Amino acid sequence: MERIRLRLEDSVVGIGEAVAELPAADLADLVNELTLHEAATVTTLLPVPRAIEVFDQPTLRRRGAIMEELDPGRAAQILEGLSADERTDIVRQMQDHARRRCMPKMSPAGQAEVERLLRYPPRTAGAIMTTEFVRLDPTMKVGEALRHIRSVAREKESIYACYVMEPDTGKLLGAVSLRNLVMAELEQPVTEVMTRKPVTVNALDDQEGVAAKIAKYNLLAIPVIEQDGGVVGFVTVDDVIDVMIQEGTEDALKMGAVEPGALDEPYIATPFWSLIRKRAGWLIILFLSEMLTATAMGRFEDEISRAVVLALFVPLIISSGGNSGSQAASLIIRALAVGELTIRDWWRVMRREVLAGLVLGSILGFVGFLRITLWSLVSPLYGPHWPLVAITIWLSLIGVVLWGTLSGSLLPIVLKRAGLDPAVSSAPFVATLVDVTGIIIYFSVAAVIMRGTLL
Amino acid sequence: MERIRLRLEDSVVGIGEAVAELPAADLADLVNELTLHEAATVTTLLPVPRAIEVFDQPTLRRRGAIMEELDPGRAAQILEGLSADERTDIVRQMQDHARRRCMPKMSPAGQAEVERLLRYPPRTAGAIMTTEFVRLDPTMKVGEALRHIRSVAREKESIYACYVMEPDTGKLLGAVSLRNLVMAELEQPVTEVMTRKPVTVNALDDQEGVAAKIAKYNLLAIPVIEQDGGVVGFVTVDDVIDVMIQEGTEDALKMGAVEPGALDEPYIATPFWSLIRKRAGWLIILFLSEMLTATAMGRFEDEISRAVVLALFVPLIISSGGNSGSQAASLIIRALAVGELTIRDWWRVMRREVLAGLVLGSILGFVGFLRITLWSLVSPLYGPHWPLVAITIWLSLIGVVLWGTLSGSLLPIVLKRAGLDPAVSSAPFVATLVDVTGIIIYFSVAAVIMRGTLL
Repeated sequence: MERIRLRLEDSVVGIGEAVAELPAADLADLVNELTLHEAATVTTLLPVPRAIEVFDQPTLRRRGAIMEELDPGRAAQILEGLSADERTDIVRQMQDHARRRCMPKMSPAGQAEVERLLRYPPRTAGAIMTTEFVRLDPTMKVGEALRHIRSVAREKESIYACYVMEPDTGKLLGAVSLRNLVMAELEQPVTEVMTRKPVTVNALDDQEGVAAKIAKYNLLAIPVIEQDGGVVGFVTVDDVIDVMIQEGTEDALKMGAVEPGALDEPYIATPFWSLIRKRAGWLIILFLSEMLTATAMGRFEDEISRAVVLALFVPLIISSGGNSGSQAASLIIRALAVGELTIRDWWRVMRREVLAGLVLGSILGFVGFLRITLWSLVSPLYGPHWPLVAITIWLSLIGVVLWGTLSGSLLPIVLKRAGLDPAVSSAPFVATLVDVTGIIIYFSVAAVIMRGTLL
Repeated sequence: MERIRLRLEDSVVGIGEAVAELPAADLADLVNELTLHEAATVTTLLPVPRAIEVFDQPTLRRRGAIMEELDPGRAAQILEGLSADERTDIVRQMQDHARRRCMPKMSPAGQAEVERLLRYPPRTAGAIMTTEFVRLDPTMKVGEALRHIRSVAREKESIYACYVMEPDTGKLLGAVSLRNLVMAELEQPVTEVMTRKPVTVNALDDQEGVAAKIAKYNLLAIPVIEQDGGVVGFVTVDDVIDVMIQEGTEDALKMGAVEPGALDEPYIATPFWSLIRKRAGWLIILFLSEMLTATAMGRFEDEISRAVVLALFVPLIISSGGNSGSQAASLIIRALAVGELTIRDWWRVMRREVLAGLVLGSILGFVGFLRITLWSLVSPLYGPHWPLVAITIWLSLIGVVLWGTLSGSLLPIVLKRAGLDPAVSSAPFVATLVDVTGIIIYFSVAAVIMRGTLL
């Protein structure tokens, strides 16, 4: 690292050799540590095939931005060398003006390909697929197929999954793995060794669904088909791993009420004010909603001034509602994400969570009851009416925890039903929702139990 | 589904045919919906090769439990047919007595293999690796290598990554993909087409690290080596996808303060009391810690009784600390998980988060200040001293949010340093930690600002 930076300062000769031994993934790590300008300089100094290798790394960040800094001719050369999916991904990240300067330097075929792929919305199968797969003819024998694969292997991103297609219509007849071809007799027709109804995805399917299918059926690649049944590309298992890491990051951030884009760059490299922007928005929204707690508390100001002891337990009561809500939410969000639950199960979820809320609330309530009872035997803190306080706490906790588990479990389902991401119903949101109601439940229970004594 | 169940009730003949058309992954889904006893009956009725296919599905649940219900001889047959990693995984899940009945029915080689693999601790590379890989000899030519692969392909889990090993010592000389072999000349020596220093993992490496390496270097498989440098197996990309899904579930649950095992079975299928146990433990621990808020509030009982208005803002203040803490925690947990941060970065994280806390706290404080000011122009709710209340809120929020971001960002680093999983420092835990301190900060600020007027 230090050596590279020194070389950049001293002289630009010899960078290629200095990093010649590094695996491309490690070189990408190194480029990630450089400024945008330095990164572009290093890229320019690398031999083109080496630069292509580096841009092929999913871990390389700012791929679009570095590309914009390069000479358009060189950028076009690197783009041409990449597989169609990576190329489109990078062009997608480039600003319009840089795109317009660089695209015309590419081959007409390459340009047309990029333009076609750009039409698929981001995060769909079409947007992450690659178009370079091995097409086999149904009339081929295994020996011919292997010879064909051998001759085209250099251009194709993956040769492990090959697709047998009707020559005229492009309709998918079957899939055959290189493994099965290698194991078969050379004289067998490929139609005999292929799988006839391979699992496929639609070009407009969400990338998470694609990942789920590849994981479920243990595939190395999955063909992507258009509405007309024609194959337009396929998604490989390593694209899917990248998708899973990306979605994992977004879910983790959503659960903490941070804008999902906050870790597009590494935490340390993200500019300070951009980090603040990604956090302040949700924090303010949560703060404004939480202000309702002050309003709710305000309605019980009289009760508080008559029995200050009630105020002491407010944080305990509302946090219990929030915690039980977060638990329920994270269970349901995850079960929805891995496909173990669907929105049609809402009734079964509700039944379970009503029971769970009652049981958990009773347990916490009992712990609270015990604590106040034991404390009151040695200290006058809770006053002479401590048994009423203890009973109020117990009953309120049942109500608040029940409400927490119900909101926490049903909110993700409601969000999913509305077409939103359930992961947004994260701990902070559930807690905020439960806090206001928790206060109302608590003081209402207190009003009933303590009428005529403390209140 | 209904048809299967009917057949199970009516007669047991014909189940094999009824499900003969289903892909194994879908058949596994179906078995997941059955009771343990039904699942065992279906497994017994399937032809052995088909049963092996079903048990090979990562989505099949209760694999150990179903195996225990089977006749030991049949269980051994199915186990023999599975790859070594799956086999060991299932045996690991079986109770001791069932293991002892079933293992002796396996071939001595199979038994020895399982016993060797069981010695690797769960969640390490050794525990998820498979031992059936293609070994090539450094003296082989490409043509010979391809013929060798062809002859052993049926027994090996994957033939896409082959390893060239020193015949005597078993030391790894290089890795070569089937793709490179197919593309090379038949007369070339394999040592010419192999990669000399392939990326490897140690048998005792954590499975998450293995997943990260496969993702980073875009590998289909990674060799697992022992301390002595010998290859003992390899981990394939589909094992890694299963690991990622499993770890994703655990992290999501930990972030909601649920025991990670809570979704080992689907949410709906988990027995009610087992679900309660997985939730009650943490809920009680959080509740007991949160009781400190009542103690903290108790110390300010006098202040509250003199200025009830102070109590109204307690939920708002402490939840703001909790929310900013959750945000910081989820950012840092994720950055640690994907390797963008290491514990050595704590100082840079702290510097950033102190600044972020001050800025975010000032913003929220200003919003709070505005709200109280505007409200007081039209309502007497906050009394004649409302400007003091507004300033108290502003200053407390700066302190509480600063404390929240600091705790939220440093707690995951501290946990990681202590060898624990950072994901445990989830929203509920950070919130609980911040609540007590939030109360103390708030009332201390109030005591200073309001001394001589309200207090």
